[in-house]
Amino acid sequence: MHTEHGQLETMNKLTFTAVPHIPHVQPGDDLAELLLAALDKSGIRLQNGDVLAIAQKIVSKAEGRLVNLGDVAFGAEAYRVGLETHKDPRLVQLILQESAAISRMKPGVLIVRHKLGFTSANAGIDRSNVAQAAGEGTVLLLPADPDGSAERIRVAIAARLDVAVGVVITDSHGRPFRLGTVGVAIGVAGIPALWDRRGEDDLYGYELQHTEVAVADEIAAAAGLLMGQGAEGAPVVLLRGLHLPPRWGKAADLNRPEEKDLYR
Amino acid sequence: MHTEHGQLETMNKLTFTAVPHIPHVQPGDDLAELLLAALDKSGIRLQNGDVLAIAQKIVSKAEGRLVNLGDVAFGAEAYRVGLETHKDPRLVQLILQESAAISRMKPGVLIVRHKLGFTSANAGIDRSNVAQAAGEGTVLLLPADPDGSAERIRVAIAARLDVAVGVVITDSHGRPFRLGTVGVAIGVAGIPALWDRRGEDDLYGYELQHTEVAVADEIAAAAGLLMGQGAEGAPVVLLRGLHLPPRWGKAADLNRPEEKDLYR
Repeated sequence: MHTEHGQLETMNKLTFTAVPHIPHVQPGDDLAELLLAALDKSGIRLQNGDVLAIAQKIVSKAEGRLVNLGDVAFGAEAYRVGLETHKDPRLVQLILQESAAISRMKPGVLIVRHKLGFTSANAGIDRSNVAQAAGEGTVLLLPADPDGSAERIRVAIAARLDVAVGVVITDSHGRPFRLGTVGVAIGVAGIPALWDRRGEDDLYGYELQHTEVAVADEIAAAAGLLMGQGAEGAPVVLLRGLHLPPRWGKAADLNRPEEKDLYR
Repeated sequence: MHTEHGQLETMNKLTFTAVPHIPHVQPGDDLAELLLAALDKSGIRLQNGDVLAIAQKIVSKAEGRLVNLGDVAFGAEAYRVGLETHKDPRLVQLILQESAAISRMKPGVLIVRHKLGFTSANAGIDRSNVAQAAGEGTVLLLPADPDGSAERIRVAIAARLDVAVGVVITDSHGRPFRLGTVGVAIGVAGIPALWDRRGEDDLYGYELQHTEVAVADEIAAAAGLLMGQGAEGAPVVLLRGLHLPPRWGKAADLNRPEEKDLYR
């Protein structure tokens, strides 16, 4: 190691590392066990303050949230919405079951408010990175309670390794106003989801306003850079170097109450 | 360095490093020069593929986008909007000058579509981390052309150091549907802003759909974790380890055309 590297090491720094050796996850797998085994095999020793960003898909698979469309009976509303959106009415049936309300629809597009409180396309249901049964479509629903999933993983790690880590379950969402998807947090444990910095002084002593930072979403977005979305398959990313206040939040904290949503 | 660290070093990894020795930026400063000096002083040698995330505030300050409210004459519309939003009509005058349209307003809130194409509160104008002249408010407008600002910094670095780096100028935005601010890209050079991965195969050979990733926003969000917003003051973050396709985009690519905005 030359001097340059040594200096870089001492600077204020975050590292995001794709955790290797995560196997293809199957329904019924104990994800925390798989994760602990992968960390062990990789020689990664977790430290207090580390945050693990975990792609929603492997959480959902472990929790058995795969549905074969051939097993889905659709109702009249799903049929109607399927016609309007040009989508398979069986897929629409599942989307509606996962949703509190339809937000927007047109051919090819179905945006809903998910029962979990956020707004997303197709209620987060998709087919990519799901092994397809022959002749039928298999789709993957979001975890039923991603905040609970994150908390269970956090507790399992704490119990085994006696370290206090944060867990963020991530998904990719489209957004109003801006093109492209970004990683967002749909499950959080062991860290705040929102970091309320109101009242802190800025550089010049002027009181900061309106600066509640969505740190869990920023973590999810950063992890998204490394996870990619395709063949490379890096579903778990370890974040080291972040210094968050010792408060615990939930991804549900990130849902903007409709009556407060002045951006829409 | 023990084995564990050696192994971590070889894994797929991103590092975000706060660049030290960035001075308080003054109007008229040559930001690229300040940045090159800070990198040199810090012993950081830029590499091809590095990305520099730069907080909008120091770009705006260097470009002289500070305005003393005492110098602002407001018109009838600014007066009316100021009454409705309980905001200083001089500040409102500047917000309206920077905006294409008002999106929403109520007491305490003024959301606009910025002339640059994105939607944000107060047209991105604020007072935090701006030195206040005695007795009067000083506010900071966004750079007039942040994509151009990013490109000028990229070119200056390439000319001096003969390295191909990306530059992302970042700001913090609130969002529809979700609480908390996140870092977003308002200026981009040397990297794609959107990474169109449609057509790539996923792990199981199913063709990915709807996966145009807003990589520049993910970079900005990640940098936001390190920049913080307050007294720590880390306005420049170096990202190393990202492997993007060799295409160049602009932050303007991230603006969703209104007619395509089904999320609203």
